[in-house]
Amino acid sequence: MSTTGSSPLKRAVLERLARYYMCLRDTGPWPDAEFVSSAQIAGHLDMNATQVRKDLALIGVRGRPHVGFSRGEMLAAIRSAVGLNGERRAVVVGAGRLGGAIAEYSGFREYGLRIVAFFDSDAGKVGSTMAGCQVHAVADIPRVVRETSADLAILTCPAEAAQPCANALVAAGIRAIWNFAPAAIAVPPAVAVRNEHISLGLAELLYHLRR
Amino acid sequence: MSTTGSSPLKRAVLERLARYYMCLRDTGPWPDAEFVSSAQIAGHLDMNATQVRKDLALIGVRGRPHVGFSRGEMLAAIRSAVGLNGERRAVVVGAGRLGGAIAEYSGFREYGLRIVAFFDSDAGKVGSTMAGCQVHAVADIPRVVRETSADLAILTCPAEAAQPCANALVAAGIRAIWNFAPAAIAVPPAVAVRNEHISLGLAELLYHLRR
Repeated sequence: MSTTGSSPLKRAVLERLARYYMCLRDTGPWPDAEFVSSAQIAGHLDMNATQVRKDLALIGVRGRPHVGFSRGEMLAAIRSAVGLNGERRAVVVGAGRLGGAIAEYSGFREYGLRIVAFFDSDAGKVGSTMAGCQVHAVADIPRVVRETSADLAILTCPAEAAQPCANALVAAGIRAIWNFAPAAIAVPPAVAVRNEHISLGLAELLYHLRR
Repeated sequence: MSTTGSSPLKRAVLERLARYYMCLRDTGPWPDAEFVSSAQIAGHLDMNATQVRKDLALIGVRGRPHVGFSRGEMLAAIRSAVGLNGERRAVVVGAGRLGGAIAEYSGFREYGLRIVAFFDSDAGKVGSTMAGCQVHAVADIPRVVRETSADLAILTCPAEAAQPCANALVAAGIRAIWNFAPAAIAVPPAVAVRNEHISLGLAELLYHLRR
């Protein structure tokens, strides 16, 4: 069920696996089902059942004819393939509303993500606590990242602070940056970056209203 | 340049058009360019240049050989096709950190989105103001939606409140719902829903950290 050694999973596949994971959990539409069919998953997610079967085959899960896929097996395989087992520590840069909202979002705990520290350039916020974590000065990024063993950073700072903060985080050893700042950032190839553009969703809704 | 009468643009196309729009604006990498090539756009967005040309052709924009695409023409065509011209009024359900962060996100103003009211079930918040707007009781959804002529709603409430709130919003005349609540909602076919699953991005980063 491991994907070690095989070719890396593409971004689109990872996103679909995360969608399957969300609807297969006990909080999903089939909390008591032992087996779920690819058609059920596809119907729930407005997708194609063949795509679902292909994605599951990629991580080594195969269904039983006329029975479907074992829900427990799918959950375990996705956890293992994506890396949701174990705990990851993350720091949040920007102790504003968005940083706080992200830190408080309960869904991340299920992914093993634990927020361990905040950073803010506002001296008035440094020393306070947010979502149970201390807010540090941006200048303390090297020390705090080292002390907390964080390997993921969530950027919620203003656009102009995004690149300097990313540089400091990478120098401190951060290996993945989740960027909610409204500016693209450049990092070395070994560091993963995901730029979240919340406004993309807005375009779809405005298009619908226009028609 | 209008798409009226043609087949509707698919979600993936709308998302890509929104990405082109973001990088073509004056805040993008070519603020002074009169012409930008599909290869430049594709390079900046880590995409394929043929895809860029196909998407632009869909909304009636064609480039000039050896010159590229007029930046002004692309911006105008995307604004017109997606419906970014004019103002849309939105209400936000949930006057918490996420609702506040969304209301304060400056990027939306550029899309013509104006937040006009908040709703919250917490009586202690009702009557206060958030991001310059009044916080109303959830029971006042029908009256406030009518009075503000809002046609878009942003859901940032807890999972269990999402469906009852969606029902009230749809009954009040809301035609598009942007759902940030961690629960899927069911609405009539004429109402557009976009479920934002922020955790999908997390899966990609955790996968990178795992390897």
